[in-house]
Amino acid sequence: MASNLLFSPFVSSIEPSFWHKAAQLKLETDMLQEVPRSVWGYYSSPDVQPFSLSVDYSAFNVDPENESNRQIACGVYLNKNTIESFKACDKKELLKTYGEELLKNVHSGAVLDNPSLLSSFFVLTFADLKKFNFYYWFAFPSPALPAYRNHGKPDNLPEILSDSQMRSLVNGHSVLPKRQRGFFGVKVNDTDSVEVITLKQYLDLTKSNEDFKLYLGFVDSSSYPESPGWPLRNLLIVIKHYCPSLLEKGIDVIALRGVNIHSVVNSLVFQIKLQESSPKITDDSASSFVGWEKNNRGKYGPKFVDLSGIMDPTKLAERAVSLNLKLMKWRLLPSLDLDVLKSIKVLLLGAGTLGCAVARNLMAWGIHRITFVDSGRVSYSNPVRQSLFLHKHCADKGELKAKAAANALVEIYPGSESEGIELSIPMPNHTTSDLKSAEVLDSLISSHDVVFLLTDSRESRWLPTLLAAGKRKIAITAALGFDSYLVLRHGIPLEADGEGGAKLGCYFCNDITAPGNSQADRTLDQQCTVTRPGVSSIAASLAVELLVSLLQHPLKGCADSKEDCCLGFVPHSIRGFLAQFQQMLPSTPAFSQCIACSPAVLQEYRKRGNDFLQEVFKNSKHLEELTGLTQLHSKTEEADIWEYSDEEAAGDST
Amino acid sequence: MASNLLFSPFVSSIEPSFWHKAAQLKLETDMLQEVPRSVWGYYSSPDVQPFSLSVDYSAFNVDPENESNRQIACGVYLNKNTIESFKACDKKELLKTYGEELLKNVHSGAVLDNPSLLSSFFVLTFADLKKFNFYYWFAFPSPALPAYRNHGKPDNLPEILSDSQMRSLVNGHSVLPKRQRGFFGVKVNDTDSVEVITLKQYLDLTKSNEDFKLYLGFVDSSSYPESPGWPLRNLLIVIKHYCPSLLEKGIDVIALRGVNIHSVVNSLVFQIKLQESSPKITDDSASSFVGWEKNNRGKYGPKFVDLSGIMDPTKLAERAVSLNLKLMKWRLLPSLDLDVLKSIKVLLLGAGTLGCAVARNLMAWGIHRITFVDSGRVSYSNPVRQSLFLHKHCADKGELKAKAAANALVEIYPGSESEGIELSIPMPNHTTSDLKSAEVLDSLISSHDVVFLLTDSRESRWLPTLLAAGKRKIAITAALGFDSYLVLRHGIPLEADGEGGAKLGCYFCNDITAPGNSQADRTLDQQCTVTRPGVSSIAASLAVELLVSLLQHPLKGCADSKEDCCLGFVPHSIRGFLAQFQQMLPSTPAFSQCIACSPAVLQEYRKRGNDFLQEVFKNSKHLEELTGLTQLHSKTEEADIWEYSDEEAAGDST
Repeated sequence: MASNLLFSPFVSSIEPSFWHKAAQLKLETDMLQEVPRSVWGYYSSPDVQPFSLSVDYSAFNVDPENESNRQIACGVYLNKNTIESFKACDKKELLKTYGEELLKNVHSGAVLDNPSLLSSFFVLTFADLKKFNFYYWFAFPSPALPAYRNHGKPDNLPEILSDSQMRSLVNGHSVLPKRQRGFFGVKVNDTDSVEVITLKQYLDLTKSNEDFKLYLGFVDSSSYPESPGWPLRNLLIVIKHYCPSLLEKGIDVIALRGVNIHSVVNSLVFQIKLQESSPKITDDSASSFVGWEKNNRGKYGPKFVDLSGIMDPTKLAERAVSLNLKLMKWRLLPSLDLDVLKSIKVLLLGAGTLGCAVARNLMAWGIHRITFVDSGRVSYSNPVRQSLFLHKHCADKGELKAKAAANALVEIYPGSESEGIELSIPMPNHTTSDLKSAEVLDSLISSHDVVFLLTDSRESRWLPTLLAAGKRKIAITAALGFDSYLVLRHGIPLEADGEGGAKLGCYFCNDITAPGNSQADRTLDQQCTVTRPGVSSIAASLAVELLVSLLQHPLKGCADSKEDCCLGFVPHSIRGFLAQFQQMLPSTPAFSQCIACSPAVLQEYRKRGNDFLQEVFKNSKHLEELTGLTQLHSKTEEADIWEYSDEEAAGDST
Repeated sequence: MASNLLFSPFVSSIEPSFWHKAAQLKLETDMLQEVPRSVWGYYSSPDVQPFSLSVDYSAFNVDPENESNRQIACGVYLNKNTIESFKACDKKELLKTYGEELLKNVHSGAVLDNPSLLSSFFVLTFADLKKFNFYYWFAFPSPALPAYRNHGKPDNLPEILSDSQMRSLVNGHSVLPKRQRGFFGVKVNDTDSVEVITLKQYLDLTKSNEDFKLYLGFVDSSSYPESPGWPLRNLLIVIKHYCPSLLEKGIDVIALRGVNIHSVVNSLVFQIKLQESSPKITDDSASSFVGWEKNNRGKYGPKFVDLSGIMDPTKLAERAVSLNLKLMKWRLLPSLDLDVLKSIKVLLLGAGTLGCAVARNLMAWGIHRITFVDSGRVSYSNPVRQSLFLHKHCADKGELKAKAAANALVEIYPGSESEGIELSIPMPNHTTSDLKSAEVLDSLISSHDVVFLLTDSRESRWLPTLLAAGKRKIAITAALGFDSYLVLRHGIPLEADGEGGAKLGCYFCNDITAPGNSQADRTLDQQCTVTRPGVSSIAASLAVELLVSLLQHPLKGCADSKEDCCLGFVPHSIRGFLAQFQQMLPSTPAFSQCIACSPAVLQEYRKRGNDFLQEVFKNSKHLEELTGLTQLHSKTEEADIWEYSDEEAAGDST
């Protein structure tokens, strides 16, 4: 009984590893371009995986994998940038484009050199790389065919070939070049052996007058007893083009349903000829194409997969965060240097309102190597202003701020490399200042690239300013008044020992008194944050934006304000006043008699080290004598930024 | 055997309820003043609590408690504002001051009317109200006394009085006026009864010539068999002043060690007279005083208690947070209205980068009634920029942003009244906009006082702008560009139906096209935050500061920019540019043809309601026709603030 021949379609399958690779290519290479990319797919005989055409991490390789039990399919990966363009794209046109490409390969003979071009496919995708959600739609383009029919039920291969013939079929198939293995010919030599030949050889032999039995062969993905798989559809196009008469006469086709000696017995032999009612083959162009895959609901439409569940969440976060930053670079600022941000190590002195907010801004910029220094504990008034702390951190006297802040960064972003150091910053005129803490601070500043001075008193900024200047590190101060703020980058001395001084001033350069004990005897209102809440978050954001601009400047920390970086102007300092919603950008030169960054001070520390510090911790007047400031002293004026504290007075028991 | 008489001191005890009350008075009444306050203390006979003088919540009452088994002590509460002034205060001088006060009360006869003045005490404190840590030092001032001796061992009361005499002693004592119960006299009537008399009556009777047995009496706190308690010390001062000869002769004193019929038997009778070696009593001024209490280590020094552990942490946080704000008011801005902040209900449209940051700034200002509206879920790129989310919120497709944000506020501050509503804001030209969501939004805006427009598209601001204008609510928009921001308070129409329009413009007033579908077809870079991280936190802070300034203005939402509030200038809008670190404060009038806030639009919504919305959701051109904007259309220009999204495109399955 003759019956209409139906081709059972491929069922696409995408390995998660494909998406990982695709995401990486998108982020690192293609970026915002929508470039079609050649990809390799693989299918196999049904003893391995019926119907399936799958793509995995190797799809993007230059050469296909060489595995004897998987056949190569040549595909194209078409990723759209938006869900809208994914939806809007003209599906019929797309199918036609790739269908015509296939026909061109048939007509040009390219498929004879590389028959795997016959298993052609493309996949249209939209990859939501933030959520790791993927929309994809496979097509296996094939021109509309004339109707074929099978001459009765297909035969089982063992009914046609002897055991030894089958053995020689398996052996012969396995030594074909890999791109020839999907489509081939079989020439029967004798009752014991067959010869497996290439598709091209098959076509040539069909024209020979010698008398031998010839079979067309293909690796069949179908496991249905009466339907061959999709690869045969396009193979018949080749026959239709090169030997149309064969199809009118009838052609014997081995559908190889197993490529080893055990599974080859599952193979079928189809006898195929044109349906009598079909129009004569006169033309081999095609006006319409088929091949879009149905989705899991049996409709023509895309499939969807959410891989966020099986991804390592840490990796997902990493990818998503870096995507945010890369997008900025791709679209708006091609010259933005993200690597400098990724590698830089930042030391935050103070883990209070400013420290928490600075850390958050750093993280948003992809700066994840952050060390906090603080000696305080989280108290009940903190969490509403200090954005890394929760109510639970206040229990039992409160967690150490530095540690709690470092832990919080990891809870926000597992890729954070964060540390918290419990340390009181030694201060001039504070007899409790100890040299050991000074040494720890010295080595912390050495091991970091940037220091933020975010403590709540003038005098706690003295030693960090001196150390950062001596080590020529970038130092940024943020200081708050009730409704005003100051953000200032310290000038970096031209030479390490401060000789020649810094071009721009440090926090103390405008200031002609040595730091005293500003913490003692503060009343309630000075023990805590009496600032408008906005000032700290604005100052913290500006401090980080100033750092990022500075890092983008060709001169980095030594940038002068004359040359812009790719992000714009790089001011020396920013002063803001919430009562007027105004900002100013004063620039002040280094002061040659500065008590923190002048050559005299830097050299004294270098020469006398701890002895010098010990003297200053006892009495800061020494600094004024050292810098020759004493005679200036009567001209002292109040800074227009008052110093308020973020913290409570550490009430120690008497 | 005669022996030197020693007085066993009080042991102070402060109930936690005392500190609660003290904290409340400090925060609500005294603020930064260091005012001495009269307080009531209580002591009792040792059958209840030996040696103890305790203060509790009732210490600050106008009248003392009337409990028959506790005696009243009159004290003074001296709280210092800083640990430094607590330490620095002159302890000797303080003791002298209150000691002399006591002597004055003795000499003036005040103690005869009110003998409880004899149990005088004061307590010097420093209250760290943030940590709920307290330092306190009690003193029970008493002039240095001449030496007394006890005539042999004291007698047990039952050896002196008969059962029925003791019964009448207990009854008589219990009906004395409460302030007379600590110090009194006992007159023996006969072998069956005694009469309990006041201290004044006792002194008078000692001068009488009638023949009867008289006892001096006091409620004794001591439980030592040979030492009377501290109250007797000052009682003897009275005797020394009014009847010095009695002390030379010897005086019988009942130390009442129980005030009911069962415990009265523990009482003792002391026979006291001046030590022979003592100088004659000639003068009753005193040059030195004693009475500071020793601490738990047996040293003269303050006691310390950390009550944070036993306090309800929620209460602790509440107190600490409100203290921060009150300090701002007390010291810097007496006219600051904190109550308006406490009571106001704020609706945040959008729980992304801006929504999270605005909520944090609101909380820091003591605004705790916050509702979030958002339809999105937390994704992996969010936590590094959206300050209420953690990495764990991203798992399993991510938590709903609105809910996660609301929960986060409670974790930061348990006193938050926060809610999260999952809602897509209906938008012009979006066929998916539904009327039900519009109704929910309408009622949300009705039930809140302030609306923040923090979404990431122009068109999502249209309906909220219209609704806020129609309901005359304060509306504040924050919009971000890559390195620029706009913060704008919408003008409030003079009348509810918009007749007369608003004096100041809304977000759309500068804008002469109807909102289209700006979300469709955005490429990767527009689906996510491609803004410099600083812009969102700065804009959010400024938006909240602008709100707070507005709420302090006498005209509230209708404030014009001409009159300052106590916080300063109240601009209409703030535009900032990070590339120049500059800010501008443009003020623009309402546009009579505005597509969101003009009378034509407000009246149309009022008249036609959902029908009107339905039409706009289908085609926003209707708005242009309604406002007569069509003819202006050719003059369209780009706003200088680009719209970028905080969020991913919500990729819905096709």
